[in-house]
Amino acid sequence: MKNVNAYAAKSNDADLEPFDIERREILANDVKIEIDYCGVCHSDIHQVRNDWGNSKYPVVPGHEIIGRVIEVGKDVKNYKEGDLVGVGCMVDSCQECKSCKDDLEQYCENGMTATYNGKDEHLGGHTFGGYSESIVVREKFVLKVPENLDTKAVAPLLCAGITTWSPLRQWNVKKGDKVGVVGLGGLGHMGVKFASALGAHTVMITTSPGKAEDAKRLGADEVLISKNEDEMKKHQGTFDFILNTVPVGHDTNPYVGLLKRDATMTLVGAIDEVDIHGGGLIMGRKRLAGSLIGGIKETQEMLDFCGEHDIVSDIEMIDIQNINDAFDRVVKSDVKYRFVIDMKSIKK
Amino acid sequence: MKNVNAYAAKSNDADLEPFDIERREILANDVKIEIDYCGVCHSDIHQVRNDWGNSKYPVVPGHEIIGRVIEVGKDVKNYKEGDLVGVGCMVDSCQECKSCKDDLEQYCENGMTATYNGKDEHLGGHTFGGYSESIVVREKFVLKVPENLDTKAVAPLLCAGITTWSPLRQWNVKKGDKVGVVGLGGLGHMGVKFASALGAHTVMITTSPGKAEDAKRLGADEVLISKNEDEMKKHQGTFDFILNTVPVGHDTNPYVGLLKRDATMTLVGAIDEVDIHGGGLIMGRKRLAGSLIGGIKETQEMLDFCGEHDIVSDIEMIDIQNINDAFDRVVKSDVKYRFVIDMKSIKK
Repeated sequence: MKNVNAYAAKSNDADLEPFDIERREILANDVKIEIDYCGVCHSDIHQVRNDWGNSKYPVVPGHEIIGRVIEVGKDVKNYKEGDLVGVGCMVDSCQECKSCKDDLEQYCENGMTATYNGKDEHLGGHTFGGYSESIVVREKFVLKVPENLDTKAVAPLLCAGITTWSPLRQWNVKKGDKVGVVGLGGLGHMGVKFASALGAHTVMITTSPGKAEDAKRLGADEVLISKNEDEMKKHQGTFDFILNTVPVGHDTNPYVGLLKRDATMTLVGAIDEVDIHGGGLIMGRKRLAGSLIGGIKETQEMLDFCGEHDIVSDIEMIDIQNINDAFDRVVKSDVKYRFVIDMKSIKK
Repeated sequence: MKNVNAYAAKSNDADLEPFDIERREILANDVKIEIDYCGVCHSDIHQVRNDWGNSKYPVVPGHEIIGRVIEVGKDVKNYKEGDLVGVGCMVDSCQECKSCKDDLEQYCENGMTATYNGKDEHLGGHTFGGYSESIVVREKFVLKVPENLDTKAVAPLLCAGITTWSPLRQWNVKKGDKVGVVGLGGLGHMGVKFASALGAHTVMITTSPGKAEDAKRLGADEVLISKNEDEMKKHQGTFDFILNTVPVGHDTNPYVGLLKRDATMTLVGAIDEVDIHGGGLIMGRKRLAGSLIGGIKETQEMLDFCGEHDIVSDIEMIDIQNINDAFDRVVKSDVKYRFVIDMKSIKK
């Protein structure tokens, strides 16, 4: 096999295959990272398969990146060779708009640069992600990773972690709150860990009784089977916050019914039409909200929190050569709870 | 004609007709009010026609009541004979739950008593509303009406007014904000007046170009025709708050697109399924919320604000004998913007 440095899909129905990419020369503010691990996010599959209609080929996915700094630009202040670092879903933004100034680069009004499939301002074309040997990233978008954690299990924190952490923090989840997490997958299992670590009475809300035991192991205080109408009725109007990780359109009304007056349910996965009844919001002054990943500052806060509380994802390791099987298993929800690619395997 | 004291519908397809009702003897904390005016709310029609499936007949509608105190119970402290007062959508609540203690009796966890079609705790059966000569109400649910306003045009403030005032205040609409009001009817015309009086740059959002002139007369700084895609695009992501008064299920996505990051659209009319795309909420951390009328304390604040700023509804007066025609015209949106019944006409 040719000496490749990445894996890519060349069209929407192609398997990922060995591929060679160019990374830019490092600029004054750039950090070059040798990638150790990269998580497999469901959105990698959506983009490879062009489910959102905006994919550019070849697609090199991967935005849950962990590695070591191997080179820094002359103006880089916070990183040096050998540092353990992470890169998430973004590698750049304008730094000038209100959202960037508010440390919420994910909502950059001029459009943030996605880690892959974003517009590459340096080389032209589009950006390539972490299913690769190395990456060059502007310092501002590099995260410090605590050294005390199981490094490979940190990778999914860069997307699944921050996506669930950000709304829990935005809505001020705290000790004594009753918090629901809907859906137990890559996002949901992190939602349970975080809500529990923040001191909330955490309720896993799922359609699958089979997930109860695992939810409790992850930190859930209770499991609510959403198909059980009697159980749902008992919990009506009692939740301070619900994090909804369901990745597709669905009927949100039963969950809205669980909220207290003035409480919020935040969608982090469903980027489709969802069913919602106006009366359910009006009768208790409730809110249906959304949240997209998180800003760089809060991503660092999350990583620091994880370091202090010894929190990582539950993962299954694979070699990059097994990525196509892994995609199929993710689609079938057959993973607890995140695949992580050992990126050194690319040399095999 | 027999000497009647109210008008009622006896079944869901019956016209309103003269009817005689009993009011309770006043208790220690009761206020008896001779009704001068009563507004005609769209929900009067829904309840008369049993559109919500919970009507109890005979239905005596009316929850936008203005009148003079004619008698007070021995423990009444804040009212005396001759006072100009109002009664809105509620006449009682438990006073003990968290919502009642938070001055949000409309969300009473034990169920507030609606002014009509509510459970009558005193006489049994159900409550009768303001399409009548007089009403007996617990002091706590009686509002003081400023004497300097056009009294008959104050009536709609008790429902249409507080329904729009409450979310504008909850979401802290203030000078300099850009606020949209969707729909120009009984609620919407009050929304425009209030948003403007609170100092916001107020934009009337309507499907009907024919409403532009009137919207500006009511206080709108701009009119945005929601069917005009170019106009809608220009306003994308620029609104701090949107008050949505559309009374039926509809596609909320175009309006959500108008919101800034972290901004909210509150539904006050649509108690049906509405269309909403999860991605529209997620991409800008936006919120779809609901709001139901308002608490007694904030209703009093609204009336006081109206007294200070000389704000009333735009009304068309009718005699009670014309109520059935008025209902038909409300259904056709053929009223600018609220019918008010001269209740003295019942003696004609």
